[in-house]
Amino acid sequence: MAKVSPRTLSGFMELLPAQQMKMERMMQILRDSYARYGFTPLDTPIIESAEVLLAKGGGETEKQIYRFQKGDSDLALRFDLTVPLAKYVAQHYGELAFPFRRYQIGKVYRGERAQRGRFREFYQADIDVIGDGKLDILNEAEVPAIIYDTFHALGLSRFKIRVNNRKLLNGFYAMNGMSEKAGEIMRTVDKLDKIGAEKVKQLLIDEVKMLPCKAENVLDFMAICGTNAEVIEALERYRGMDATFDQGLDELITVTKYLRDFGVPEENFAVDLTIARGLDYYTGTVYETEMCDHPEIGSVCSGGRYDNLAEYYTDKQLPGVGISIGLTRLFYVLNEQGLLSDELVTAPCDALVLPMTEELGFAVAAATALRKAGLRVQLYGEKKKFKAKMSYADKIGVPFAVFIGEDEMNEGVLSVKDMRSGEQVKLSPDEAAAYMARRIAVLNSGSVIKE
Amino acid sequence: MAKVSPRTLSGFMELLPAQQMKMERMMQILRDSYARYGFTPLDTPIIESAEVLLAKGGGETEKQIYRFQKGDSDLALRFDLTVPLAKYVAQHYGELAFPFRRYQIGKVYRGERAQRGRFREFYQADIDVIGDGKLDILNEAEVPAIIYDTFHALGLSRFKIRVNNRKLLNGFYAMNGMSEKAGEIMRTVDKLDKIGAEKVKQLLIDEVKMLPCKAENVLDFMAICGTNAEVIEALERYRGMDATFDQGLDELITVTKYLRDFGVPEENFAVDLTIARGLDYYTGTVYETEMCDHPEIGSVCSGGRYDNLAEYYTDKQLPGVGISIGLTRLFYVLNEQGLLSDELVTAPCDALVLPMTEELGFAVAAATALRKAGLRVQLYGEKKKFKAKMSYADKIGVPFAVFIGEDEMNEGVLSVKDMRSGEQVKLSPDEAAAYMARRIAVLNSGSVIKE
Repeated sequence: MAKVSPRTLSGFMELLPAQQMKMERMMQILRDSYARYGFTPLDTPIIESAEVLLAKGGGETEKQIYRFQKGDSDLALRFDLTVPLAKYVAQHYGELAFPFRRYQIGKVYRGERAQRGRFREFYQADIDVIGDGKLDILNEAEVPAIIYDTFHALGLSRFKIRVNNRKLLNGFYAMNGMSEKAGEIMRTVDKLDKIGAEKVKQLLIDEVKMLPCKAENVLDFMAICGTNAEVIEALERYRGMDATFDQGLDELITVTKYLRDFGVPEENFAVDLTIARGLDYYTGTVYETEMCDHPEIGSVCSGGRYDNLAEYYTDKQLPGVGISIGLTRLFYVLNEQGLLSDELVTAPCDALVLPMTEELGFAVAAATALRKAGLRVQLYGEKKKFKAKMSYADKIGVPFAVFIGEDEMNEGVLSVKDMRSGEQVKLSPDEAAAYMARRIAVLNSGSVIKE
Repeated sequence: MAKVSPRTLSGFMELLPAQQMKMERMMQILRDSYARYGFTPLDTPIIESAEVLLAKGGGETEKQIYRFQKGDSDLALRFDLTVPLAKYVAQHYGELAFPFRRYQIGKVYRGERAQRGRFREFYQADIDVIGDGKLDILNEAEVPAIIYDTFHALGLSRFKIRVNNRKLLNGFYAMNGMSEKAGEIMRTVDKLDKIGAEKVKQLLIDEVKMLPCKAENVLDFMAICGTNAEVIEALERYRGMDATFDQGLDELITVTKYLRDFGVPEENFAVDLTIARGLDYYTGTVYETEMCDHPEIGSVCSGGRYDNLAEYYTDKQLPGVGISIGLTRLFYVLNEQGLLSDELVTAPCDALVLPMTEELGFAVAAATALRKAGLRVQLYGEKKKFKAKMSYADKIGVPFAVFIGEDEMNEGVLSVKDMRSGEQVKLSPDEAAAYMARRIAVLNSGSVIKE
């Protein structure tokens, strides 16, 4: 029979078992962490009506979208988790309690040009808090504080959450009479990291058509740095010139104060005036998160405050604040950099029970007892030679092999071999369970990410 | 601005938060249960090349498939988890250890005619064991034993796993010289439950063109029932007439013996000669699972033994055994029947911390302490009147409200209100954490399914 070559589409991540276990562990940490802060899990369809999904329309997104007909229906695959959230909240408004706090970890689709490290199907892991009409600024500090906590739980500590406020930027541009050019200026300033201040200044003059003195004003403003207290002190010098700026500064001061209240150390967050976030709809605090030792990979977690989550679906004013982890990309980068722990158990089971006799009653009972003690246990039922069985145990990387032969059955014990040390002991089923559970707990006590 | 009406496509399940929590709990139980038996989690793309996904081609499936072009690529959404598994195993053959045991819980897509209780996007929860060349029959008993255990963990006990063997059927048809008509006969016999023996007999005579005596032979065979021992005894009368039949009978005897070894009670499994499974590729033991009090919903968990998982992709002989739970449909039916527990906590959090003062330091510290004790805690930061706060607590159905006012701050205590009983107590943060954790554990100790 002619065979079809089995292959996975480029831009689609498909992991081997050990890697998948690490990904699962990361996802479980995210779920636990988000749930611990009172976010409810949400699951929305991957396919939506194209009209609903593209209500906002236009832009880069529309070109990348997976869109197709099925029967008479014009369908599209979701390209983020924010639009489905907006739809959900507008649709179920009357049944939800506000603030509505939800997390969602799900696949999204963008038909980007395929290249290494870029994915067309990828997981996002989002949290959002949505208010009905109003939403307290406390949420703008809590959301990055949750990210701090979550990253810590993953094992990351060398990261920095960069915080800015859109009102501060808009106010600054207004006080300089540059409001109309604000978008263009922000896009140009965004290149500071890549091309440096001199070239940005030249672009502002040549392409954005700014007077040199105004371009300098912008660069002076963006150059403000130091500790958070120093940055805020520098910003205070602009106070009184624009009401929006003053409001943004007050918000920034409040958010940084609350971030300290939430226990986020200064080394993990920084006011950074160059952060703007591309999307138009952010209106207050904005975030980007950089891995200190890998700035080249860009922001691994971004978001901010918006005033109108669902304006394309409803007249209700639904302000919110949210943040999104690009999970597939983060996993890919960590894996490439060798930052994922190899100490955690990634085998499909903790113990491989190897019966050496025809009669399986005792082996089945032993496997059941070990499972009751919380161990993941595979009963090996293939009739193979001892060597083949051990080679299987090695290949799956199982921490413990459990031999059950005539002797063990007669004595009512299990022979437990620690596959790492080679040490082998005979124990009663209960002792064996406790012994292995203790060691497995130690193996799994580390973080999934090793810096 | 003109609004787009927010809506979810028909045939796509989207749950409100409390229902979603129940779905999540079911998924977590499936994940834990499958992992406990040494199955590794797998995650494959939802989109595959149409050529790969439809390698087998033809049939009902192809009509229902979501298939579309993106650029030059002919793409399709997976319609089950078996074809992606076959692709995965063929593609990564050299990197996997066999038997390869994987579970996968994921969404699949079928463009069925929309009707109540039928879904176009739905979760399947599959386990499969794949051998390299050979696979011991023990697996054919372990797989339904795992399902027994999993259903129990969900809270189901009134179910029956019906077991049959394709060799038995094929052997029986061969000994009656009806092999060519076997497919047609099986499809007709499948209607026994619906239209009864007399009408099936008439169809066998009129449409399948069988001699009346042969039709009667078939019906006599299918009518064999009783305890598993009685059924096997009745089958023994056919022994010696066809080698395939004899082999099937031996396998059936072995599987029922092992099922007892695995501790599956007789009331939860039954040999049922009418079970055949539509798909051509099953070759040994086959399963269907019926909920005893709801036979009308059909099989909620089906599968069986096959000899060639990936014949469209590789020459390697890859026998396997697997079973699949139609999770979305199962959830839908249980929910409709009112069989999902309302006792479990489905609120987004276990405790809602309500600060009554401007200063939040103590409230933040209290929330952190409660989270460390394993509670899911929401810090309510909105500046609302007391009544509005309590109405929010009611609406999200939170088990505990925690008040923090001037008095509490001064005394270093928390006022904890049990929202179900109305009882309110003042406790230190540690005592409060222990008190609530204890009660939450009791609330969550029940099963997600209540029969």
